[in-house]
Amino acid sequence: MVVVVIAEKALISQIRRLAKAKVNPAVLTGIGDDCALLRLPAGEGKGRDTLVTTDFSLEGIHFRRSWHSPESVGHRCLTRGLSDIAAMGGKPVAAFLSLALPRDLPLNWVPRFARSLISLAEKYGVTLAGGDTSESPNGILADIIVLGTAPKGKAVLRSGARLGDYVYVSGELGGSAAAVWKMRQKPKRKLNPRGYPRHFFPEPRIELGRILREKGLASAMIDTSDGLSTDLAHICEESGVGAELQAEAIPRASVGKPLREVDLEFALHGGEDYELLFTAPRGKRIPSRIAGIVITHIGQITRGRKIFLTNRSGAARELEPRGWEHFRK
Amino acid sequence: MVVVVIAEKALISQIRRLAKAKVNPAVLTGIGDDCALLRLPAGEGKGRDTLVTTDFSLEGIHFRRSWHSPESVGHRCLTRGLSDIAAMGGKPVAAFLSLALPRDLPLNWVPRFARSLISLAEKYGVTLAGGDTSESPNGILADIIVLGTAPKGKAVLRSGARLGDYVYVSGELGGSAAAVWKMRQKPKRKLNPRGYPRHFFPEPRIELGRILREKGLASAMIDTSDGLSTDLAHICEESGVGAELQAEAIPRASVGKPLREVDLEFALHGGEDYELLFTAPRGKRIPSRIAGIVITHIGQITRGRKIFLTNRSGAARELEPRGWEHFRK
Repeated sequence: MVVVVIAEKALISQIRRLAKAKVNPAVLTGIGDDCALLRLPAGEGKGRDTLVTTDFSLEGIHFRRSWHSPESVGHRCLTRGLSDIAAMGGKPVAAFLSLALPRDLPLNWVPRFARSLISLAEKYGVTLAGGDTSESPNGILADIIVLGTAPKGKAVLRSGARLGDYVYVSGELGGSAAAVWKMRQKPKRKLNPRGYPRHFFPEPRIELGRILREKGLASAMIDTSDGLSTDLAHICEESGVGAELQAEAIPRASVGKPLREVDLEFALHGGEDYELLFTAPRGKRIPSRIAGIVITHIGQITRGRKIFLTNRSGAARELEPRGWEHFRK
Repeated sequence: MVVVVIAEKALISQIRRLAKAKVNPAVLTGIGDDCALLRLPAGEGKGRDTLVTTDFSLEGIHFRRSWHSPESVGHRCLTRGLSDIAAMGGKPVAAFLSLALPRDLPLNWVPRFARSLISLAEKYGVTLAGGDTSESPNGILADIIVLGTAPKGKAVLRSGARLGDYVYVSGELGGSAAAVWKMRQKPKRKLNPRGYPRHFFPEPRIELGRILREKGLASAMIDTSDGLSTDLAHICEESGVGAELQAEAIPRASVGKPLREVDLEFALHGGEDYELLFTAPRGKRIPSRIAGIVITHIGQITRGRKIFLTNRSGAARELEPRGWEHFRK
């Protein structure tokens, strides 16, 4: 056990060294006290609200060491949290990492993981300000916590969709699920991350979320972490509405080499693309590209609580929220 | 996998129902959006700082299902976080729970765990405001995050101990480690929690921490989660000082039935008692009881970086930070 204690101490000081730069001045005391100490900006005039999100990244559930490099795991781990902040139109401030490690972990795993995570954090002005370390009974266990802020009362909720609103999504869908599907076919083959960037190194849509919130464009918003069918169902449930999607409007990711468009089912149910799914009043003009990201009009909000998918010929079928988990087994 | 998804949904709505009461008005939107939304009080005049702490509770590392009831696991899980807030003299506001569950978990485990955790949260005015749920690859995995506040610049850090300060500890030490030791002797026997309250249902010292901070009594503070020798070493390291402890002054817990005082080694190195260890300038009068908890003067801060233990005859030996992990294997 002593070995583990030493490893843990080394780990803490390693991460501490890597995270030393206080990227965000709101963080007063980071790693090295009982709590991290933050002075969140009060903001101009009306003040700011605080956003908090937590997300597990568990080996065997969210990633596999044989499929994902330490860099990919670190990047995806933090993106899970940043993407939740983006989905509220918030500004991320600080991240906290709880990390439990098995005894058999190669020595260079943690530095590679941490460097990738911290490099993504720095890109968005986020300080890694604390966390917990522990021995793991089995596999690598990470929990990422991200704190952010939004102007008082201005965070974009899931509950704001209204009858007649249009439904939009950023980027392309299904690329991440396609990578998982491909890896399941031949579990021993490493996939080239460059052919599947949304799976291995998904960029959180922080800037897009901020613009949508600032300009008052989005009435409701969520990130596509569970998949379009499940995440739209969350908006509908929280807003007390239904929706109708046009099948051929849904932007399908192109993946692999040579590039090939994914099947519709991947775009409908595949999760972990970390795009933004949002609604906007019909009268709002939504640019076809915001912060460099293509925005696609894919449907509208309807009465009732159900979601229907309409094909080119006008035939509609109910779209059940099948969700991401479907692809795992 | 579908079963797990349904179980997860049921779990979220279960916890959501249990946590529905927004115990703390600072929590605007809790479970059910991408992030929890908090309006932290700006405080009178000078404003407030935000405290954040995260702590794992992992089956097989921090608890065993054969040793700990779901109620004990839930209570200890939240106490880990609350105690960190207490150690800064802060006021806890909101908690977030990331919870991963194995497939074989009995149905009533989560409600019993959650009810105990939420009941402790309510006692301290803390709202369970969000978190994450997942399938676990192995065993129950919980990560608790607690947010709190402290008046601007007033949180008590580990780094404030000065030469000549006295060292104090609240309550009694070693009771929790004694329980673990006892259970290790006969792993199949359930210990009666009433004989070992500091192990099974430790009360965080929130009120004591607040008073020490408010009255400006503590110059540095930490909670005894890792054990006296390790936690005092943390204070010394962060403050750049050493310390000298009087062996016979250290308050040893009385445990079991009939009550029996634990050995000195348990009090020196046993963790998870969640008492407060603090330093105070020599001139400050520290009451012998604060918020109903006995406070004991156990030593003083010295030059150098080492910690010495002095016995009744005046002989001193160096006290290495052996820490809690020592008792695990």
